[in-house]
Parts: sequence; structure tokens; C-alpha cells
Amino acid sequence: MKHDGLFIVIEGLEGAGKSTALSVIQQWLEQRFPGRELVNTREPGGTPLAEEIRAIWKAPREEPMAPMTELLMVYACRAQLVETVIKPALARGAVVLGDRHDLSSLAYQGGGRGLAEPVSALSGITLGTFKPDLTLYLDIDPAIGLERARQRGELDRIEQEQLDFFQRARQCYQSAAAEDDNILEIDASQPMAAVHQAIVTALESRL
Amino acid sequence: MKHDGLFIVIEGLEGAGKSTALSVIQQWLEQRFPGRELVNTREPGGTPLAEEIRAIWKAPREEPMAPMTELLMVYACRAQLVETVIKPALARGAVVLGDRHDLSSLAYQGGGRGLAEPVSALSGITLGTFKPDLTLYLDIDPAIGLERARQRGELDRIEQEQLDFFQRARQCYQSAAAEDDNILEIDASQPMAAVHQAIVTALESRL
Ligand SMILES: Nc1ncnc2c1ncn2[C@@H]1O[C@H](COP(=O)(O)OP(=O)(O)OP(=O)(O)O)[C@@H](O)[C@H]1O
Ligand SMILES: Nc1ncnc2c1ncn2[C@@H]1O[C@H](COP(=O)(O)OP(=O)(O)OP(=O)(O)O)[C@@H](O)[C@H]1O
Ligand SMILES: [Mg+2]
Ligand SMILES: [Mg+2]
Repeated sequence: MKHDGLFIVIEGLEGAGKSTALSVIQQWLEQRFPGRELVNTREPGGTPLAEEIRAIWKAPREEPMAPMTELLMVYACRAQLVETVIKPALARGAVVLGDRHDLSSLAYQGGGRGLAEPVSALSGITLGTFKPDLTLYLDIDPAIGLERARQRGELDRIEQEQLDFFQRARQCYQSAAAEDDNILEIDASQPMAAVHQAIVTALESRL
Repeated sequence: MKHDGLFIVIEGLEGAGKSTALSVIQQWLEQRFPGRELVNTREPGGTPLAEEIRAIWKAPREEPMAPMTELLMVYACRAQLVETVIKPALARGAVVLGDRHDLSSLAYQGGGRGLAEPVSALSGITLGTFKPDLTLYLDIDPAIGLERARQRGELDRIEQEQLDFFQRARQCYQSAAAEDDNILEIDASQPMAAVHQAIVTALESRL
């Protein structure tokens, strides 16, 4: 898909500081590309339909959710968001800023749940060669991230997972960042000001 | 998956008479396998979680649903039903009676929406080699079936599709029945008593 848009994604474990960092990225983008349309998305979700699926997906429930169900629901959300929001926005030349995207599935369902092969197959089926121009990965020890998330309130179905789930997810994130030039790893254990400075430096080096 | 259970599926377009036929099949099974556990399922749906997704999936809405979203949602439902209900039931030796299953995706999303390749890939990812022991396909001209469904009440998102969508789905159903010995085609344009007699004959020849 050739287009004039720009698709930037922020990734990382629970409480890594993604949502906090997004406002920094947005400010920087508004200065760097004044007047340009900016579209904020989040995953899973980002459209009314995908947000309905997200709500079902996040809610703790008595019925155990099969790992493959969890995986297919995320890709249903992603297909809807990419086809009805992200691709049309990029075609208009907008900058799209994503709070999580495909890499989260590689880390959580691939690493965390041990479904690396189906994740890779579903990514191909759903996205083809479509991918972000730049991904900023906020690396954090899951124990620290979960503690930050816990202070925020009730834990959702994913946040209730055990530590080793998130440790496997973190390893996937780190490997992906090491292998892919378009994924930049940022040490998110630093004080917030230092993290945000590192984000700005990364953006300036790449955009 | 080896087991002592029996998985029988009824398939066909809207208004073909599947739900009506199920009670005939159930009666026959109760006589043929007295005292045996019988589990009724329907797709998409069949578990509380899958029924929540079904409701979102069926509802007509302003936001257009991307064909790939529709497809992934059905497989999310199917994964949940197969893993948490059907496989455990078969492992207990139960007879499972399904109102639609994977063949509906081949027909509707594969034929109707033109997504034959992703359907086949998703079927492999989600089900592997798992499949029904017997499928009864009720063949009906979609114009007749839709008229029957219309008399039942408001049409859902799928039922609102154009006739050519269902004609493509019907062709997929017919080809599958011609190729697969475990799919028996029954002429559902006959009067109800004749359809039900044909179903009983098919069951007696196979079970
Ligand atoms: N570098 C940091 N040092 C200390 N606290 C931080 C830092 N970055 C963010 N926080 C705090 O941690 C909490 C979680 O941050 P935030 O909500 O941005 O994380 P997130 O990655 O978006 O989490 P989630 O994946 O759950 O959405 C917030 O209270 C935030 O203020
Ligand atoms: N052979 C038949 N001749 C005439 N009417 C029939 C016949 N079989 C079923 N019907 C009627 O057609 C309507 C639809 O039947 P039914 O609900 O069983 O179809 P269905 O295949 O389950 O449809 P759906 O896919 O929408 O669930 C019902 O009112 C039923 O009584
Ligand atoms: Mg967040
Ligand atoms: Mg029915």
C-alpha cells in the first residue's frame, strides 16, 4: 500500500508508560508536521465495533477464554481498525498514532500464550505486508509495569496474568526490537522526563 | 482427536429448515442411542462468550464491517465453542448436534464474500484436522429460503445480503457436498414431511 501518510506505533507491557508517552509524541508531531491531520487509535479497539469486541475481550469472566479465541478476537479488531480507519487515514495523508498494534499480538499471544505460529499466520492473513513506519517500544520489567498499572485501579483479564506470561512477552518484544530496524527500544524504567526525552530523540533521528 | 463421541452438523442457507430439522434428528438420536448424552450447539455462538460475539456480529450497524472482521469473528466463536464445549463433550462420549459449523464459513465468507483462501487458512489454524462425523446439508433456492426467513421476522445483517451472495454460498455448499462423502445433500424445497423423511433415511444409512 503506497501512501503519503505516516503510521507510528507505541508498544510495551502494561504500565510501561505508552498512554503517557502518546501526548509527548503527539506534541512533537504537531510541531514537526503543523496542520497535518492526526489520527489517534488504540488496540484492540479504535472503532465502535472493535471497542465492543475489546470490552468482551478485556472483561474477566467465569467461562475460560480459549487462547485461540483471544487471538482471533484481537485480529478481528485489528482487521476492522486497519481497513476502516488506519488505511483510509493514511491514504488521506494523515499521521496515524497507534497505542499498540500487531507487535502486541506477537508478544502477548505469541510469546505469552505460546501461539507464535498462528500469530504469524494470522498477521499474514489479516495485514499482508501492511506495517507501521516506526514503532517505539517502551521496555520495562513487568513487575514494575504491573505495579504502576495496579495503582491505576482494577486489573483486567490480561493484567491478571502471572509474571512469567509478561516475561515471555517482554522477551518477544526485545527480540523483535533487536531484529527490526523500524522498532526502536526505549528504556522505560527511567524517570518519566528521561523516557520522554529518549522518545523525542528517537523521533528526531527517524522522521 | 480420537474419541467415542459423535459430531453431527446440519447446514444450509437461511430458512432452509435447519432448526426445524434439528428436532427430528434429536428424536432419531434419542431412539438410536438411548440414554446417551446429547449436546446441542449452534454457530456462531453456543457459549456465553461466543453468543456475545454473535450478537455483535449479527446486528445491522452503521459502521461497515470489513469482510475480514466478519470472518475472524466467526472463527473466534468457533474456536471457543470447539475448545470449551464440543471437544470436551466428544471426549465424554456425547453426541453433539450442531446447527451450522465450519462449512457455513466456506459457503458464506468463502463463497459469498469471496474469501476462500483466508477461510481455508483460518480453518486449518483453528480446527486442524477436527471435523464432523456427518454433515446434513439442506439445499434450498435462496429466494425460497429468504422468503421463509422473512416471514419469521426482522432480517439480521447477513440475511440483508443480496440474492447473488446466497447464490454463491449455495454453489459452495453444493460443491462441498459433491466432493465430500461425509456431507449428504438433501432437497429442502420438498414439503417438510418429505425433508424429514430424507433426513431419517440419511441418518439410518450412516449411523
Ligand atoms: N517513566 C515512568 N516512571 C514512573 N511512572 C510512570 C512512568 N511512565 C508512566 N508512569 C506512570 O505509570 C502508570 C501507567 O502508565 P501508562 O498508563 O502510560 O502505561 P500504559 O503503557 O499505557 O499501560 P496500559 O498498557 O495498561 O495502557 C501511570 O500512572 C503513569 O503516570
Ligand atoms: N420443507 C419446508 N417447507 C416449508 N416451510 C419450511 C420447511 N422447512 C422449514 N420451513 C419453515 O421455514 C421457516 C424457516 O425454517 P428454519 O427456522 O428451520 O430454517 P433455518 O435453516 O434454521 O434458518 P436460519 O438459518 O435462519 O436459522 C420456518 O418457519 C419453518 O417452519
Ligand atoms: Mg495505556
Ligand atoms: Mg435456524
